[in-house]
Amino acid sequence: MTPLLVAGIDPGLGRIGYALLCGGPAAAELLRAETIVIPPRREAGARLALAARAIGERLRRDRPQAVAVEKLYFSKNAKTALGVAEARGIILLTAHDLVPSIWEYAPLAVKLAVTGYGRADKAQVHRAVRMILPRARLPAGDDAIDAIAIALTALYTKRWHA
Amino acid sequence: MTPLLVAGIDPGLGRIGYALLCGGPAAAELLRAETIVIPPRREAGARLALAARAIGERLRRDRPQAVAVEKLYFSKNAKTALGVAEARGIILLTAHDLVPSIWEYAPLAVKLAVTGYGRADKAQVHRAVRMILPRARLPAGDDAIDAIAIALTALYTKRWHA
Repeated sequence: MTPLLVAGIDPGLGRIGYALLCGGPAAAELLRAETIVIPPRREAGARLALAARAIGERLRRDRPQAVAVEKLYFSKNAKTALGVAEARGIILLTAHDLVPSIWEYAPLAVKLAVTGYGRADKAQVHRAVRMILPRARLPAGDDAIDAIAIALTALYTKRWHA
Repeated sequence: MTPLLVAGIDPGLGRIGYALLCGGPAAAELLRAETIVIPPRREAGARLALAARAIGERLRRDRPQAVAVEKLYFSKNAKTALGVAEARGIILLTAHDLVPSIWEYAPLAVKLAVTGYGRADKAQVHRAVRMILPRARLPAGDDAIDAIAIALTALYTKRWHA
């Protein structure tokens, strides 16, 4: 089975999680993971342009075969959700221009794939990521770990044609 | 007072209103207005790429000095709002790359500027647009008329330095 090179992206307005994994449903290597911080700008377009450039640079450098992106659901803060959705739009657009496949996963699907439990909390997801990748040096930020979980979801749920 | 060339954009996932106006707070000419229909695509990224290309083509052709875009507020359908926000993100990004200024207006500000009443309904806004531009051949679609209203808001509320 040919391993897959997949980038996981956790969309955000000010912080975007980015992770690059290589592997399959049984074993994966973490190649890199980081939280990209997008500094505030007075104009929304300027901030979105920074996010597009940051994601574009990484996808051009890493050349993954697929990008896995989390779907958005409504949180308590509806205004934040709209801003995140704008950032998610430019992430999808940038990935569409640079990567052959884009896969989207609902938060529930990510939790289920990584912990086996669709209503797992953030700490449980992070513990599961550490158990799945015991040799990896995981980054500190939540967003980067979430991006790893999203990429793992892609490796676990892809229909593998052995 | 130098007239301003401004494009009004009403963001949407499947339908985007686009209008080009030239003028000032006292008088404006409608140069064009249309509803851009973005056909559905299986992949969100592909659809957003179509929207980005459609808006990019028009902004490169028309070269407005500013783009006026409506801000999003939560409607009854929260899922739709997230999709529209993704489209709005790529519109802001595309405009940021091509146009010197981007101005954003809340729906209330558009209604207030065009009808004098912040809680005007859609029909009142459309009637006001017809009265403001009596010589113009207005397009049929709601989204195009909304885009005209947004561009008019920019002409009415800009701080003009005569």
